Amino acid sequence: MQTLWDYRYAQRTQRMASSAIRELLKLTEQPDVISFAGGLPAPDVFPVQQFSEASVKVLSEMGAQALQYGTTEGYQPLREMIVRHSARYGIEVTPENVLITAGSQQALDLIGKVFINRGDRILVESPTYLGAMQSWNVYGAEYVTVPLDENGMVTDELEGALRSGPKFIYVLPNFHNPAGVTLPAMRRQKLIDLADEYGVPIIEDDPYGQLRYEGEHQPAMVVLDSKMRNCGNCYSGNVIYLSTFSKILAPGLRVAWVIAPPEVISRLVQAKQGADLHTSTLAQILAYEVSKGGFLDEHIKTIRKVYGERRNHMLAALERYFPPGVEWTRPQGGLFLWVKMPEWIDSIELFKQAVEEKVAFVPGQNFFPNGGGHNTMRLNFSNATPEQIEEGIARLGRVLERAIKARAAAPAV
Amino acid sequence: MQTLWDYRYAQRTQRMASSAIRELLKLTEQPDVISFAGGLPAPDVFPVQQFSEASVKVLSEMGAQALQYGTTEGYQPLREMIVRHSARYGIEVTPENVLITAGSQQALDLIGKVFINRGDRILVESPTYLGAMQSWNVYGAEYVTVPLDENGMVTDELEGALRSGPKFIYVLPNFHNPAGVTLPAMRRQKLIDLADEYGVPIIEDDPYGQLRYEGEHQPAMVVLDSKMRNCGNCYSGNVIYLSTFSKILAPGLRVAWVIAPPEVISRLVQAKQGADLHTSTLAQILAYEVSKGGFLDEHIKTIRKVYGERRNHMLAALERYFPPGVEWTRPQGGLFLWVKMPEWIDSIELFKQAVEEKVAFVPGQNFFPNGGGHNTMRLNFSNATPEQIEEGIARLGRVLERAIKARAAAPAV
Repeated sequence: MQTLWDYRYAQRTQRMASSAIRELLKLTEQPDVISFAGGLPAPDVFPVQQFSEASVKVLSEMGAQALQYGTTEGYQPLREMIVRHSARYGIEVTPENVLITAGSQQALDLIGKVFINRGDRILVESPTYLGAMQSWNVYGAEYVTVPLDENGMVTDELEGALRSGPKFIYVLPNFHNPAGVTLPAMRRQKLIDLADEYGVPIIEDDPYGQLRYEGEHQPAMVVLDSKMRNCGNCYSGNVIYLSTFSKILAPGLRVAWVIAPPEVISRLVQAKQGADLHTSTLAQILAYEVSKGGFLDEHIKTIRKVYGERRNHMLAALERYFPPGVEWTRPQGGLFLWVKMPEWIDSIELFKQAVEEKVAFVPGQNFFPNGGGHNTMRLNFSNATPEQIEEGIARLGRVLERAIKARAAAPAV
Repeated sequence: MQTLWDYRYAQRTQRMASSAIRELLKLTEQPDVISFAGGLPAPDVFPVQQFSEASVKVLSEMGAQALQYGTTEGYQPLREMIVRHSARYGIEVTPENVLITAGSQQALDLIGKVFINRGDRILVESPTYLGAMQSWNVYGAEYVTVPLDENGMVTDELEGALRSGPKFIYVLPNFHNPAGVTLPAMRRQKLIDLADEYGVPIIEDDPYGQLRYEGEHQPAMVVLDSKMRNCGNCYSGNVIYLSTFSKILAPGLRVAWVIAPPEVISRLVQAKQGADLHTSTLAQILAYEVSKGGFLDEHIKTIRKVYGERRNHMLAALERYFPPGVEWTRPQGGLFLWVKMPEWIDSIELFKQAVEEKVAFVPGQNFFPNGGGHNTMRLNFSNATPEQIEEGIARLGRVLERAIKARAAAPAV
């Protein structure tokens, strides 16, 4: 249908993510497809009963407040709870350092709005989180990349990228999306040191940090940065830290948080005012009510147990069903692992074959800002049951083996 | 505190609304101040019990869905309900024309993101909704204005503004924020005709249209536009229509909707993906559950009764307490009325005196994109009780009389 809007789109819409990947992923929504494509938490661990009880309590005791407009900064008891929660991970801040956002996706959008001028370079890992690029492309971001290995960002290759003068560094240090890898303490320190040397601030995106299934907790970059400045556990503010209730409580709430210096929070608040006034009051108060009194900590233990088992099931199934020549990461936490296939495989072609076999993943090239990764894929292990993981990986193994056999049988060119 | 972020703000942050007005309005939050400054619904009409029952039902019957990620477009049964609801006002659309947003504020932000290039002119009423400017300033919008009178936009002055080549027209036809005025059918038709002649599309922002306390419902611009195109009640799509649950159900949900052609919806969906993935699933499902089965229609009748009475109280109090030489609009619905004081009064100075007298309003100049309105103010009548309205307007009348007396007593210059 022709309308007057047709020729009026802003230039920046040309940089919005093409819907090709969305169209592709719609194929995975058929009910008989076992999908490792999404990044969905397991609905069976949602604390539904606790939400039901909290709803009744909140609406009877403070219904007028829960249904009314709220402040842009967020529900004050929730901000205070996040301060206490953060302190347990060594992040020493006050409520003035905390902004509640409508999911971490909104935090990324507001950061783009507040910091990115057209043509600014953002230093990212390659691959990196697709959603960050979706937010920042519309503000005209360009990307300078540093590769990942099984220990996260290869910090030995960081200086070259820093010399290009990036606006900021964006890093997912824990259980990386999509790669599933974790940055060890020494690399974190090196990243902090080099960022300081070059005067480049850091966005630390940490949606999964609390979902560790093995190994030792690694210090947050925001903590290392503060320590380096010799002010004890003070908050120096060169690292903006993002986290969320989506993976530890429920993503349908759309409640997450930013930790930043008060001056940055103030700019983000102005941007959020124009973006949506404030995050759903009811969702924020429910997040607070369900989490408080130690429930969140107990619940995180439950999630770790369930997802840890699913990760183990997927790793075991990969050993059993995937052909030689295919490699994958062994994440110590989070929701994803990353598969590298032989160089000649095109994962978009493989995706189409997989969907016919009723199994799905995300082709990896979407996560590379400047190209690459055609022979990679991301697998999610949190959403499918152990039985589905077993069956789905078996199907995917068959698809891979068939592709390898077909190539072996093809006449040499 | 000095941080590395200090010199890294994007140019567009210079166009974010100054926090002067926000700082001013913080003064109104003292508990003993009677505030006519906000745009808050009355919490005593929130259907708290219905929300409580709906929460228990939703969480027990579909908790896993309510707490999980959802589609960017919105909860399908809610989109379908909005289609049925809109049809009763003559707006004939399908769910593909509906996008659920996190409040109408987000709809304005997404429209800015999708349509506004730096320097684009937007045709607005003067005064116009402050929040629209807050959203659009960051995308570099400029404004070309058409004045309002007691019947809304003065359409006789529209052609001059249209000749400047605006990207689109933004209009609040019903119970205007801030002015409280309503555009009669003849002016609506003239606006539609001229927009068509000049090929300029329209954003129709209608948060209050259902809250009419007297007079006849005026046809939505989106309906007039479709009719003009001789396709019966078809939806031609040159008007994007915005409405919300904030004023008819509860603003704390942050659930609103856009009606637009599918092509525009698709762009807005892409923008929303990068902005917050989707609107809170729980909030959407609750909005649907509480509204369905006729409850919303009954509830709107309750709101009309309560707010209509409050409007009457305020109009009566203004007659009683305001000195001669002060004029105000007589809104047929909505939440606001608009006061014009003698030319020599500066409403920001008056605001400071009013807060000392424990009463507050919004100084009017904030609503004028290109200056003006220093002697105007916006009064909200939905949030205060009849007793507070009586007392607050009496206080404000005293402040005004004192200012007038002080001027009369001052020696002529």
